[in-house]
Amino acid sequence: MKAELLYEGKAKQVYQAQGESGKLVLSYKNDATAFNGGKKDSFEGKGRLNNEISSLIFNELHAKGIETHFIERLNETEQLVTQTEIIPLEVVVRNIAAGSIPKRLGIEEKTPFEKPMIEFFYKNDELGDPLINDEHALYLSNVTEAEIKEIKELARKINTHLIDIFRSINISLVDFKLEFGRKSGGTIILADEVSPDTCRLWDRTTGENLDKDVFRKGTGDLIEVYEEILKRLEAKA
Amino acid sequence: MKAELLYEGKAKQVYQAQGESGKLVLSYKNDATAFNGGKKDSFEGKGRLNNEISSLIFNELHAKGIETHFIERLNETEQLVTQTEIIPLEVVVRNIAAGSIPKRLGIEEKTPFEKPMIEFFYKNDELGDPLINDEHALYLSNVTEAEIKEIKELARKINTHLIDIFRSINISLVDFKLEFGRKSGGTIILADEVSPDTCRLWDRTTGENLDKDVFRKGTGDLIEVYEEILKRLEAKA
Repeated sequence: MKAELLYEGKAKQVYQAQGESGKLVLSYKNDATAFNGGKKDSFEGKGRLNNEISSLIFNELHAKGIETHFIERLNETEQLVTQTEIIPLEVVVRNIAAGSIPKRLGIEEKTPFEKPMIEFFYKNDELGDPLINDEHALYLSNVTEAEIKEIKELARKINTHLIDIFRSINISLVDFKLEFGRKSGGTIILADEVSPDTCRLWDRTTGENLDKDVFRKGTGDLIEVYEEILKRLEAKA
Repeated sequence: MKAELLYEGKAKQVYQAQGESGKLVLSYKNDATAFNGGKKDSFEGKGRLNNEISSLIFNELHAKGIETHFIERLNETEQLVTQTEIIPLEVVVRNIAAGSIPKRLGIEEKTPFEKPMIEFFYKNDELGDPLINDEHALYLSNVTEAEIKEIKELARKINTHLIDIFRSINISLVDFKLEFGRKSGGTIILADEVSPDTCRLWDRTTGENLDKDVFRKGTGDLIEVYEEILKRLEAKA
């Protein structure tokens, strides 16, 4: 199924799909990194879990009318997706203050945002993925003003659906990172992944972290919590 | 003329004006700070120079129809201004890439921006005046979405006028920082100062810095270059 390796990221490899022009194979790795690569480790089973979780969530988003690059899960660690021109923005949506924002802006940890807060980070490892504003995004990336507006609207819509999906498995969606890509026709769709690597997920009863924060903070077993997310999603389906 | 000291900043003291409700006296200090207070010094004459320069520039802006808080220069180091509720945003306008932006976003130093770039920094010493986006500004400060738009439009208009003013004295306006305040009626007007402390100014012939960068970088005599700016502005008037 896989042809040429096009790109290797921190958590995934991206291959041209064999004989299927315009399609890619995403291969999920077991590597975990945090703090812009400052902390690294590998967890047997992580690639499979994120591939399965992200596939389930993308299917749920499709059912709610959100277009994504996801086509199908191919095997334990690989999925087939539509090839898009990736927009070099990490689009972060925050429902509750956690992660970098409390210290950066002096907002008390766990403060809920009445209106979910959207942030753009410039996807650039060398620069450490800096926070940018809309004018920077226009200057640095291949987007128009109308597309920036569209990306924010899409992110808000996806947030509403993801909140519902996670609430149905007793999880608070605290914040998450999305990436978008442009299809050959120009349409912007959701790309990359939605997984405990890219979302901050808190159990609604116990408050415990069910996401990559257990690795970032060294407070739990990454595989155990990712398995918990998959188990709940599968029980729901 | 001065009554109670209301606030002491890095470069100015702010007093209630004696017997004049709704007016303030700004007293310009000789102190210079850079790198968020990491570098400090004092320069005999700096307060007088900035007071005189800022007064001349605000008068020029008035002549061009821009409303500001400036009423009149009272003496060497003091000026009378309209009291406003300060909006806690440092509004930076960039015509050419210099200062923090080249390293932060990987833009080559001295790159001109076809469309001047506007940035908001949250005016908060404890947090180190962090860069913020419009959604942060809405959340953190006392502004509405319409006011954010208005502030940006005002900043662009002021930029056009300042470019003209400085070009007429053979200076390139590279970038500058503005602060805005809200009058009792609600109108947002330009406040704070416009001086070589708050602007990056390059001689159009020699390219030399005629602003606080000589202090930041230790490349020249601050008083000499501020005097040069005042001399050129006075010769023009």
